[in-house]
Formats: sequence, structure tokens, C-alpha cells
Amino acid sequence: MHKFVRNLITEWRRLGLPTENAAVVVGVSGGADSVSLLLALCDLKRRGKHDLRLVAAHFNHELRGSESDADQEFVRELTVTHKIEFATESAGKLPAGNVEQNARQARYGFLTRTARNVEAVAVVTGHTVNDQAETFLMNLLRGSGPAGLAGMKPVRVLSAESGVRNSGSDGAESSQEGQELLPFAASPLLVRPLLTWAKRIDTEGYCVDSGVEYRYDTMNEDTAYRRVRIRKILLPLLEDFNPNIVETLAQTAGLMQGLPSDNAPPDRRDEAELAIKDLMETGGSELSNRIRCWLASRRGNTRALGLKHIQAIERLVLSKRSGREVELPGGAKVVKKGGKLVFRQK
Amino acid sequence: MHKFVRNLITEWRRLGLPTENAAVVVGVSGGADSVSLLLALCDLKRRGKHDLRLVAAHFNHELRGSESDADQEFVRELTVTHKIEFATESAGKLPAGNVEQNARQARYGFLTRTARNVEAVAVVTGHTVNDQAETFLMNLLRGSGPAGLAGMKPVRVLSAESGVRNSGSDGAESSQEGQELLPFAASPLLVRPLLTWAKRIDTEGYCVDSGVEYRYDTMNEDTAYRRVRIRKILLPLLEDFNPNIVETLAQTAGLMQGLPSDNAPPDRRDEAELAIKDLMETGGSELSNRIRCWLASRRGNTRALGLKHIQAIERLVLSKRSGREVELPGGAKVVKKGGKLVFRQK
Repeated sequence: MHKFVRNLITEWRRLGLPTENAAVVVGVSGGADSVSLLLALCDLKRRGKHDLRLVAAHFNHELRGSESDADQEFVRELTVTHKIEFATESAGKLPAGNVEQNARQARYGFLTRTARNVEAVAVVTGHTVNDQAETFLMNLLRGSGPAGLAGMKPVRVLSAESGVRNSGSDGAESSQEGQELLPFAASPLLVRPLLTWAKRIDTEGYCVDSGVEYRYDTMNEDTAYRRVRIRKILLPLLEDFNPNIVETLAQTAGLMQGLPSDNAPPDRRDEAELAIKDLMETGGSELSNRIRCWLASRRGNTRALGLKHIQAIERLVLSKRSGREVELPGGAKVVKKGGKLVFRQK
Repeated sequence: MHKFVRNLITEWRRLGLPTENAAVVVGVSGGADSVSLLLALCDLKRRGKHDLRLVAAHFNHELRGSESDADQEFVRELTVTHKIEFATESAGKLPAGNVEQNARQARYGFLTRTARNVEAVAVVTGHTVNDQAETFLMNLLRGSGPAGLAGMKPVRVLSAESGVRNSGSDGAESSQEGQELLPFAASPLLVRPLLTWAKRIDTEGYCVDSGVEYRYDTMNEDTAYRRVRIRKILLPLLEDFNPNIVETLAQTAGLMQGLPSDNAPPDRRDEAELAIKDLMETGGSELSNRIRCWLASRRGNTRALGLKHIQAIERLVLSKRSGREVELPGGAKVVKKGGKLVFRQK
């Protein structure tokens, strides 16, 4: 198995994502990041590592004329070759204003609709460690404060609500995603399974090793965009100070989320909490999904974690009493306290 | 009154610092930052805004030969002209290793000894908003995590203990300050009353307006030092992205400390807590100093705050019972809860 594929399934399990009886929508632009993600998910399916229904989804922004159409055609052919379901849509006329923001809004609207159409548990995207570092710097430079420095999260709920709430705190999706979306409980997750470990060089490397072409977006060279200037001008200068600056910034964002990390002081692992209030707004499989993702990211794995543990924590959430706790395999426990679920290591 | 002087007394009060019956040691290198601080404190004393005993302290690092001696002589003459007590010491031979770090360690050792000699409540230094922005970037680039992104604090305890503890979290004093220092409770505060509002241009401007010369350290031009490269190369590039980048980075550091700020979301103000465990290690005037500084920074002022409130909170700290609270003038209160003092706005 290619190292990239092995890393992907490891992260998929760490995030507590389902491996059967579910559909996922893969956002595919045609670039190396999303193409490598799609190919690796296909490879894992062929190997029997999961049995998820995969739906590749491409949004044609129509911002670069024939180049945009060629991207769309490229992704279509890729899905035909690999026998993957394909959903696509073209932007039509976007509203005037911030081009990047409107494009992102339209793209996420499409991905969310597609996820609902196929009843997917998640939209997965190919954001990498490099994207995280760039988002961190974007937010730092605009002064968006501690919330912005947490960057993008590997798992969050994709909904009108979270689109609004996350304004500023999640650089890549800071736009309001519109009122046409379904209410919270019906919303799929947005999952970025490459975010914490894959660099752009890894996604390109996996495509090359797989003998698969990928498209290159000429807008990635246009220094009229802040993000491009950060990538092309600022990051190379920062590398003079720290050759691993991309990893360092992405790790810093991870630490700001209270994520476990080899660099995190041990006591930070115990701080992470889930607000009951937020959990109460979700329900059913949504609620258990969120609890599983949270537990997985706290523990760093899902070993020996069964349905009964998830259900016990669900009862904890719904119960009116405080001070209760659920013991987990391995000795950690989840305590309900002060309106929050608190994860405690052994 | 010069705007610089007015801003200084406002910050002095906000930090809840004493204005009588106390001595303070002012660290003076001879540069614009420390000279402006010393001059403004003298001006405030002449105007009857405080009656503190001021002691200017200069450490001659002897790193730049006759230039270093000229700095020392310059500060000596300044204190003669302004009739200020003067303490000075020369480095002698510094241990091999990191020049900046050893120099800083020797300087803070001298400042701490001087403060103890005159029984000062605090050492005050001229660190500015620019220094804070540079420290933030130093720590970010070296990957020191959320604690490092909090940068320098306007008030902290100056002691062997805090020197060790703050490793990484307080860029300018991350060194171990040695075992020769007295225990925690006897240690003065380190106060940086320019840190949150004065830029380098303000300190230089105040010196010029006052007709007072200041020294210029040629090491500030030596790009062999990371801090100089950050100032001379990185920050000008970041200004292309955000013309107010220095203020933005310093504000971000402030937000990371949970300091009140116009940019902070309101609920952050309520988060700030003091760990009882840390407070218990202090005692006497040290304890009341820390409580006053904390309250002042929480409330943004010390209006109507009397000795009885401080004493009531001291009793709260020393009491074995939890859940108790002290009401403050204006409706805010301090609650003892979960091993912490929690500040609650009305």
C-alpha cells in the first residue's frame, strides 16, 4: 500500500469516520490535492478497507472560460476511468463582489446539496497542511484573533448555521452559506482528512506515483490574490527563519484547536470540552457522529470504542443531571460538568 | 501634559500599580523606549501624579566596547540632570553560548538585585508594542505554541521561578535566571507599562518633543540577530498585507492572554481566571499586588476599588471553601470555583 494511502486510512480511523453503510461526497477540483484524495479513497475501497459509497463532485466556477470547462471534463473522465459516481454543476452568473468568497459560497452550496441528494454523512475535501498554514497566516494578518488562529478544523458540521457561526474562525469557509440550506440536524459533516498530515508535495507525489495526471489552476499564480501572495512571497521568506514553517504554522493552528499533537503539552489534552448546548441542537446519527469524532480526536484513535460507549455518552448529554461520567476502554473517561462534556485521560 | 505622559499614567492606573509608599526600578538602556519611560515617570512625579521613589538602573553589557561605556555614561548624566537615583553594573566576562540570552540573563539578574536592594515593588521596562509584535513573531516562527503567542505580559512576577516557568511563553525573558535569587514571595513584579499602547515612534517622538537625546544601539542593525531580521525584513513585508501589522500582532498577543481589548469578543472577558494554587505560593504584599493587577486588568480600571475588596479576595484565596464570592463596586464579582478565582462582569 502506498504510504499516502496508509496515512489516509489511519487519519480516517483517528477521526472516527464511518467505513460502511454510508455515502461520502468528495469535492474534486481536478488539482493534485483533491485528485489524490479521490484516488486514495478508491484504492482503499478496492482493498476492502471501507465500503463507502463514493460520489465525486466537481463545481465549475466558469471563472477561467475554456480552462474551467477542461477541468470539469478532466474530472468527469477520471471518474469514468475509476468507475466513480460523478456530480457536477456550473456556476452560472455569480453575484458581484468578492470573487473568491462568492465562488467558495457557490461551491459549498453545491457540495452541501449533493451530500443531501445522496444522503451522505460527509463532504470530504483535499485541504492540506499547506492550506492550513496559509489559512493561519491569512487570519493572522487580518487580525482575526485566537479563533482565527485555530485555522480549519479537520471535522466540522457543514450547514447554513455553521457557515455563519464560523465567520472568521474557519478561513476557507468564512462566508455565509445561505438560507436555502436545511436545518442543522440534517447537515452533513465537512471532513478534511489530509489537513493534519499531507503536504502539497505528498499529494503531487501520490498522483505521480499512481501515473495519474492532475490539473493546475492558473489562478494559483495570480498574485492579485492574497492567498497566492502568502504562498509565493511570504512563506518562502518565513522559510529562511524556519525551514519547517508550513508544518510549524499548521501545528500551531492544531494546538489552538486543542487537538492532540506530539508538540502539545500533556495538560492541553485534558482541556478539550464539548458544549452540551451545541450537542442538544443535533440529534440522531448526527449526535453520535459528533461524539465519535470528538472521542477519536481526544484519544487519538477509536480502539475498543463500541456503540455502547457512544450511547452511554448520548444519554449523558440528554440527561438533566450534572457530575455524571462514562468510563472508556483504556481508562479515560467523559464527565458531564458545567454544561460541558469533559474528556479526562487516565 | 504630553499625550505620552497622559497615556502612561492611564496605563499605570489600569494595571493597578501603586502611586505612593513604594520604590520602582526603571531599567534604562539609553535607547528611546527606556529614556522616554524614565522621563515620563519623572514628569508625572513633578506633577504630583505619583510619589514613588524612582531608581534608574543601567546594565553595561560591555559587548560593544567604548560604545557600551558611552551608553552607561549617557544614562548616568541623564540621571544627574534629572536628579534621579542611579544604579549601574558592568557585565564582566559573560559565559560562552547564546550571546543575547546570556546578556538578558545577566541584565535581569542585575535588575532583580537592584530591586531587592531598594525594596522596590517592581522593575519597569520600556518594552513597546513593537517589541510585543516582534516577540510574537519570534515565538510563532520557532513554533512555541499558544503560550508563546501570548507574548510578553504587562505584569508578571520577576523571580527565579517565573524565569524558569515562562520558558518559551515570554520571549524576552525565556532564560533561567539562576538559583541565586530569593524565593518567590520576595520577588518584585516586572511591569511593562508601554507594552500595550506605545509604539517605537511614540517613544522617539516624546524624547524629541522633550528635547532629550537618546542612544542608538548599533546591534539593532545587525541582521545576524533573528530579532533584527524580523524587524528589518519580515515586518516591512507583512505591512504590505496589513499596514497596521504591528498593532494587529500585539493585539493578538493580548487576546491570547485573555486581556480585555476592544477587539475581544465580550465573552472572553469573563474567561479570565487566576489559579488559587499559584496565588497560595505568594504571600503578603505580593499576593495583594497580584490580585490588584488582575482586577485592574479585568475591569480596565481600579475605580472605587478599595483595600477592603482586595482583603476580601485574599480571604477568599486562603479559605478552604469553594463557591464563595466577593462583590465589587460596579456590580462585577470574583468567584472562587474549581481551584480558581473567576472574574464575572455584571
